[in-house]
Amino acid sequence: MRVAILNVTGYAGVELARILARHPHAELVSVTGRAEAGKKLSEVFPHLAALDLTIEPEVSASVDVVFSALPHKASAEACAPFLRQGVKVIDLSADFRLKNVAEFEEWYGVQHPCPEYLEQAVYGLTELYRKELQGCQLVANPGCYPTSAILALAPAVAEGIVKPDFIVDSKSGVSGAGRGLSLGAHFSEVNESVSAYSLNGHRHLPEITQELARLAPNEQPRVTFLPHLIPMTRGILSSCYASLKDGALPEGPKGAKELRELYLDYYQGEPFVKVSAAPPATKHTAGNNDCILYPAVDWRTNRLMVISCLDNLVKGAAGQAVHNMNVMFSLPETAGLEALALYP
Amino acid sequence: MRVAILNVTGYAGVELARILARHPHAELVSVTGRAEAGKKLSEVFPHLAALDLTIEPEVSASVDVVFSALPHKASAEACAPFLRQGVKVIDLSADFRLKNVAEFEEWYGVQHPCPEYLEQAVYGLTELYRKELQGCQLVANPGCYPTSAILALAPAVAEGIVKPDFIVDSKSGVSGAGRGLSLGAHFSEVNESVSAYSLNGHRHLPEITQELARLAPNEQPRVTFLPHLIPMTRGILSSCYASLKDGALPEGPKGAKELRELYLDYYQGEPFVKVSAAPPATKHTAGNNDCILYPAVDWRTNRLMVISCLDNLVKGAAGQAVHNMNVMFSLPETAGLEALALYP
Amino acid sequence: MRVAILNVTGYAGVELARILARHPHAELVSVTGRAEAGKKLSEVFPHLAALDLTIEPEVSASVDVVFSALPHKASAEACAPFLRQGVKVIDLSADFRLKNVAEFEEWYGVQHPCPEYLEQAVYGLTELYRKELQGCQLVANPGCYPTSAILALAPAVAEGIVKPDFIVDSKSGVSGAGRGLSLGAHFSEVNESVSAYSLNGHRHLPEITQELARLAPNEQPRVTFLPHLIPMTRGILSSCYASLKDGALPEGPKGAKELRELYLDYYQGEPFVKVSAAPPATKHTAGNNDCILYPAVDWRTNRLMVISCLDNLVKGAAGQAVHNMNVMFSLPETAGLEALALYP
Amino acid sequence: MRVAILNVTGYAGVELARILARHPHAELVSVTGRAEAGKKLSEVFPHLAALDLTIEPEVSASVDVVFSALPHKASAEACAPFLRQGVKVIDLSADFRLKNVAEFEEWYGVQHPCPEYLEQAVYGLTELYRKELQGCQLVANPGCYPTSAILALAPAVAEGIVKPDFIVDSKSGVSGAGRGLSLGAHFSEVNESVSAYSLNGHRHLPEITQELARLAPNEQPRVTFLPHLIPMTRGILSSCYASLKDGALPEGPKGAKELRELYLDYYQGEPFVKVSAAPPATKHTAGNNDCILYPAVDWRTNRLMVISCLDNLVKGAAGQAVHNMNVMFSLPETAGLEALALYP
Repeated sequence: MRVAILNVTGYAGVELARILARHPHAELVSVTGRAEAGKKLSEVFPHLAALDLTIEPEVSASVDVVFSALPHKASAEACAPFLRQGVKVIDLSADFRLKNVAEFEEWYGVQHPCPEYLEQAVYGLTELYRKELQGCQLVANPGCYPTSAILALAPAVAEGIVKPDFIVDSKSGVSGAGRGLSLGAHFSEVNESVSAYSLNGHRHLPEITQELARLAPNEQPRVTFLPHLIPMTRGILSSCYASLKDGALPEGPKGAKELRELYLDYYQGEPFVKVSAAPPATKHTAGNNDCILYPAVDWRTNRLMVISCLDNLVKGAAGQAVHNMNVMFSLPETAGLEALALYP
Repeated sequence: MRVAILNVTGYAGVELARILARHPHAELVSVTGRAEAGKKLSEVFPHLAALDLTIEPEVSASVDVVFSALPHKASAEACAPFLRQGVKVIDLSADFRLKNVAEFEEWYGVQHPCPEYLEQAVYGLTELYRKELQGCQLVANPGCYPTSAILALAPAVAEGIVKPDFIVDSKSGVSGAGRGLSLGAHFSEVNESVSAYSLNGHRHLPEITQELARLAPNEQPRVTFLPHLIPMTRGILSSCYASLKDGALPEGPKGAKELRELYLDYYQGEPFVKVSAAPPATKHTAGNNDCILYPAVDWRTNRLMVISCLDNLVKGAAGQAVHNMNVMFSLPETAGLEALALYP
Repeated sequence: MRVAILNVTGYAGVELARILARHPHAELVSVTGRAEAGKKLSEVFPHLAALDLTIEPEVSASVDVVFSALPHKASAEACAPFLRQGVKVIDLSADFRLKNVAEFEEWYGVQHPCPEYLEQAVYGLTELYRKELQGCQLVANPGCYPTSAILALAPAVAEGIVKPDFIVDSKSGVSGAGRGLSLGAHFSEVNESVSAYSLNGHRHLPEITQELARLAPNEQPRVTFLPHLIPMTRGILSSCYASLKDGALPEGPKGAKELRELYLDYYQGEPFVKVSAAPPATKHTAGNNDCILYPAVDWRTNRLMVISCLDNLVKGAAGQAVHNMNVMFSLPETAGLEALALYP
Repeated sequence: MRVAILNVTGYAGVELARILARHPHAELVSVTGRAEAGKKLSEVFPHLAALDLTIEPEVSASVDVVFSALPHKASAEACAPFLRQGVKVIDLSADFRLKNVAEFEEWYGVQHPCPEYLEQAVYGLTELYRKELQGCQLVANPGCYPTSAILALAPAVAEGIVKPDFIVDSKSGVSGAGRGLSLGAHFSEVNESVSAYSLNGHRHLPEITQELARLAPNEQPRVTFLPHLIPMTRGILSSCYASLKDGALPEGPKGAKELRELYLDYYQGEPFVKVSAAPPATKHTAGNNDCILYPAVDWRTNRLMVISCLDNLVKGAAGQAVHNMNVMFSLPETAGLEALALYP
């Protein structure tokens, strides 16, 4: 299988290259990038020396699937020609995630270049859309925060044990801010510090809301989502809160057990979702494709708390994209994604 | 004014020494510690070389005020003799914070050594108890998390704009775990990682609840408090959530302005509480005694969100203790606490 | 091939488990540990959930090769019975590294439990001892610092271009201090700080000296080795200095080119030693088995400077040990070690 | 005393503001900055809220002394008018450090805008030039690395115990790279990584050489200086190496004692140079103006090793500049610089 990556020079792109370089069924044949075009990939990224590729301005080879790690709008524009040629596309940007084009245009402040593809695009949260992904042509790979939040809340929402009022308090490493330079990712500014951002609303909010709504079609989910930047490179931990419906769970250890079983059942057989027996740390996911969930109840307030950990560049981006590729092409789902977390 | 520190070798104790060493009206005359007794203070803590003190097993000199940085129970036991002698005591442990002795004994799992002092103890959240602190004999210095949470929510609760159901999601640097060795503070375990802890309930919860209840005596506050450990040394950021009462604030910019003014008014004249115009970062408080608050509303869900930043060892412990001493002894409130934050 | 790990609960041991879990030709059948014996491996190390193993007090199964990650002395004591039974042993401790037993006993302050095995032990710096490793029974896996220093200096020493007076200034991440608790690895003590240690001599010095002496038998190498602890988890960068012999290299770009070629030639065909074209960073080796070298000359002082980067837990410990196993058993050398560095 | 800061928005400039804000004898009356001109200082730097100043394009008030934190060349250009008006100038750039204008122009690749001031400029390493600083008009504040290296080596060189061949291996926090954006200071690139840089020669080298030459006028010092970037914000640790002259010190403990006394004598009475009894860590200098030195000998190679720790933004820049101001104006030397290090 011949693969291309658009915009290999951002962190999602370079992480795709790292994973695909060791994928047993895929061959990376073309990588693109604007500012660094013409350079050897290994010159910009020494850890990819094993890949003998040159960064190109455009995909030069014929390929079976294209991963786009371009920014929104630019990504849809670059993907459209491939879609027209029948090439499969996995888009890591936000362009095809929101089904409502007006909502997209409001949150992203641009006109959608090709809304005609929205309907066929499959939201690539693999665990929830496995069937739709098989053989599809276009995948909208989820955002890093939505992946952590939706996987955390899906069992509770789908099983109807919580009221539709959610708080998602997320803590992210700095690589989520990308490889582009900014004061907000300048070492001395963010090291030894934590801050909240996007208090007026983060672009990942509508994505979370859309998917929670789909899981409980008769309820109108209300979501407060607040992301925080913490001084580490990789990892997202989301703390998700929602009030239990009356009588949803018996109080105490029995309820805790039922809750855990509900989560275990919901994700039974999933290769990349783990329901842990103790509160997890993002370190347990560094460099691998797991999402670790830990559901608990604050019995004093009858509130569900679900902790969700993942590596924002793997399960939150490139790893999930490769998982989606595996499903699209009916490959073994874990192909290329077997790496264990890099602890410590 | 002659001052002693009990248990100078923990992080709260050594931070007290750092601050008091430069206090214009206090003289540090005795510091105690068990394991390191007999050593020069500067041998254990090179940054305190300016203080020519030896760590003692017990306070050997006569003093006007004692700061105790001992663990709970041991602290009350060590403070009682000083109290009996009429020496003023500022206790940084939890021993005198909870007015309800049964609640203390339930959360801390020990019998209180001297409950007879609970009534006279003043909860040393300086901004809320300034009057009671003046001339009092015993101060129960608040916990680091409660300081951040109560200061964040007090204006909203006191002014009655929120429903009494709270979520406090706190992120703390590792120094909060103390200087005692543990795997949970081992560099390679916590670096590049974030985790939630105390999901069954943290000991700082009853303290938060007690004080919020006092601010709105007719309401029964329900608080979910979830602390997180993040890879930095100093700092706490608490994200506090509560639903607005209907009509509490006009929607949109007008409401945001009213909210900000409510907070500015509430803390008017306070030397160490800042209501910021933009979301703050803990870095803006490193090494100083400020608590920075940023109130905002998520209008989509009508939810108040207050961000609170402070240095857990200063405003969350030693700095607030010195502030309390200044108030007790009618000294200038900012004496010894003028240091600006160490940015970057 | 059936494999056991002695003392899986230290960082070298757990890293061996991580690598061996994905090794195509090895099956990890037994892991031991004292304090944690009886627990599931995944309970202590969630990232190893894929391995269904219980930590045992002793190796219970029959195995083809044993990796020992025990401390010195304890390691030799535990390895001896396996050696007597004809099981192959790869010892990550220092016990079999120094050929001179008196030197071992002086530096380590203990009596060697089984000096009779020293002669047959092969010093497992794979690149220098490949031939001796094939089919051998006992490997003394090198220390992390010696690996970085010897690989950096070997070409220059073997080719005779430098005087035998060396300074090795090494910077190590904190995982090198192990998983055992100590104030020197306590987060708040080492974060945001750098320090030198072992100024009276570090135990890795005789190892470096022994191997440099072997590379230039007619010279008496004099080595100053100074290690530093820096606030990161993984990685060692060694800066190695030695004066060029007169006329060893032509001055300027021509000399730089010759030097680079000398290094490229020396390590030609090596899968895990890279001679980089630009100064490397330890990040380029995180989690993988590469050692990256960058030789340069300070022409103002006619001094060779070689920068060496590696991951102390992989190439500096577990990865090199697996590489040695591959060579011992005539497996493909890179089996189990193909992972690319986890950048960023 | 009325003070201005040119280019307050870099890290040296903002650190000057932090220190001067609490200086008992100086009043900061004007701060300049290009990109941020017109903004309130507290808007850009919340920790400076105590200073009610607006960033100006040019100094608008009359002042007694100007600190310039501008880049080289721009700094000399901006300082010249003040010098002509008789205003005292403390220049933190490199413009007036090198006495040899040709050397300056070679290393910095620009023509010196006003070489006529070079002769009168005093190199502001306070401990070595105290007398010349008193009442002088122009101070060339030393570079951060040279401060650490020269203070470390001065006693040994001045007392003639070492051969004039030096290696200075320095490790610096990222704030040394400034507040300007670059991939080399991008969090995810430098976090969890260490690298050497400027292997072809760093601009601070001629400064080190110039001053060591002045200390031993009959010797030609040869210096190899190699700086490294490590993942922390503040701090420099320099490890300095030089061979002892024959018979310079008796071997063993007696020699170690003599060496320590030599250093203690040399810096006797200095308020900001500490000769420590144990290897220091940069954390012991965070935020304060100390330089901590630890001299030792590697008796195996008869080599002097001196460890030097300081805060690059304080003793390595702003703090030393304020110290110089104090000396110039015959103020108490420690005025404004009494802060103890922020440990942990």
